[in-house]
Amino acid sequence: MILDKQNWFSEICEEAGSAFSFRIREKLHEEQTPYQKIEIYQTENFGKLMVIDGFVMLTSWDNFLYHEMLAHPVLYTHAAPQRVLIIGGGDCGTLHEVLKHPKVTLVHQVDIDERVTRLSEKYFPELCASNHDPRAELHFADGIKWVRDAAAGSYDVIIVDSTDPIGPGEVLFTEEFYRNCRRLLGEDGLLVQQSESPIYHLELLSGMHKSMRAAGFDKTATLNFPQPVYPSGWWSATMAGNGDLATFRQRDCETRPFTTRYYNHKIHAAALAMPNFVEQHLMENLQDK
Amino acid sequence: MILDKQNWFSEICEEAGSAFSFRIREKLHEEQTPYQKIEIYQTENFGKLMVIDGFVMLTSWDNFLYHEMLAHPVLYTHAAPQRVLIIGGGDCGTLHEVLKHPKVTLVHQVDIDERVTRLSEKYFPELCASNHDPRAELHFADGIKWVRDAAAGSYDVIIVDSTDPIGPGEVLFTEEFYRNCRRLLGEDGLLVQQSESPIYHLELLSGMHKSMRAAGFDKTATLNFPQPVYPSGWWSATMAGNGDLATFRQRDCETRPFTTRYYNHKIHAAALAMPNFVEQHLMENLQDK
Repeated sequence: MILDKQNWFSEICEEAGSAFSFRIREKLHEEQTPYQKIEIYQTENFGKLMVIDGFVMLTSWDNFLYHEMLAHPVLYTHAAPQRVLIIGGGDCGTLHEVLKHPKVTLVHQVDIDERVTRLSEKYFPELCASNHDPRAELHFADGIKWVRDAAAGSYDVIIVDSTDPIGPGEVLFTEEFYRNCRRLLGEDGLLVQQSESPIYHLELLSGMHKSMRAAGFDKTATLNFPQPVYPSGWWSATMAGNGDLATFRQRDCETRPFTTRYYNHKIHAAALAMPNFVEQHLMENLQDK
Repeated sequence: MILDKQNWFSEICEEAGSAFSFRIREKLHEEQTPYQKIEIYQTENFGKLMVIDGFVMLTSWDNFLYHEMLAHPVLYTHAAPQRVLIIGGGDCGTLHEVLKHPKVTLVHQVDIDERVTRLSEKYFPELCASNHDPRAELHFADGIKWVRDAAAGSYDVIIVDSTDPIGPGEVLFTEEFYRNCRRLLGEDGLLVQQSESPIYHLELLSGMHKSMRAAGFDKTATLNFPQPVYPSGWWSATMAGNGDLATFRQRDCETRPFTTRYYNHKIHAAALAMPNFVEQHLMENLQDK
């Protein structure tokens, strides 16, 4: 069956020999920034679609899954998160979720490419509704440099909402980066990072656990969740910290003063359940499991 | 980006305006049976692929997710399942999982198309490894007629491992079919049926819950799980019964005398967690929630 070029946008996942395609109405925008090529499409069923360097970043229709799962589990795992750093996250969807937590007092978002945010403001305004919240500071700067320069203990939670670990995102998956995050967080701080597909990218996942532990985090834990528009439709985020990552402020979660579409306390617990093949792979690849 | 016809097999999901594609090496087989068109492909990364009437049925690589989740949760939810009826399931993957339970004494599998099983024996022999188990009876017959004719109370568990609710599979999603299942099961029996994507097919899902309850089942519960090769990559199975469906024989599950690749007791509990948007939709569409 041929998917013709005019009516479909396809992302090929080379490592899995699979592709996911959207029926599109039109290309709304395309530009090459100093960092990457950004495209915006109007799809038939997923609302608007943002693509960076050929890879699907998000759609209007299903980004809530990813953004909620990147923000809320880590914030309810931390005892009292106030100061949050987001590395990447230029579409501002994660920022929007983080700012739903009334006890968060400060969010620094550091994305290298201001154009992602400006285009998100235009095409995904619902994700940018909190950009002018007085607690939010949007910095368009190099995240690697930011974590190298920031003061020790200056954040409670770091959220790495990055592109895939190929190209510019690659340095965000290294032990050195995690070591800087560890320094910025202090003893009680928590890191969370999108960690690709649990079934397509198992080697990457175990590599992340290893690097995070090598960087000084005692505990790591992966959260699983569906994300139809990413390769395999099944995605993950991995937390790192020095306390128990399996428990969370369940009562606060149950009485949260904001709405979510996917996340709730049962989903939080469920996301931590590890399939046998993932657990086995992690055990085989981590010394201190 | 063009996915050319020669190197890719694509399934378009019309209702979602999306498509999933496999890089293929060759078509191994194609035939039109009296019931449907069956194709077998050798893929690049997913092993072999079976397609029926253009819809992806299974691949060697990831069918364990679906087959384990269709078989084990319902069997550990029932107190003492011995007699099992599988409607559909011609590839025999579900049968193989069911027969891992030593206390199961009898499995009737009723698929209308013998060719699915014969081709599965040839191209997916690992799924057919238990076909000659003395507890298994393979009947190539009409499942609708089977549930109309079978004696009341003759099964403990019915598993409906069917194609999508369009075409020949449609009659397996009706109140009349569920009413017959209810009669075959008696008071303690449990029904489980594949119930499509929780995000693409929410209307179908709530319709199934409604029809199952209208047919006389007091309780219904949906299990969620990943399935990369089905539309959205996120799939579900829905159980119906007259007792509590949220608890299961956890100790038996933890000490099960067989291996699984996805399923375990934590995954079982996790699969029952309902995302907010699904729960809300079901509540709005079910009177007796």
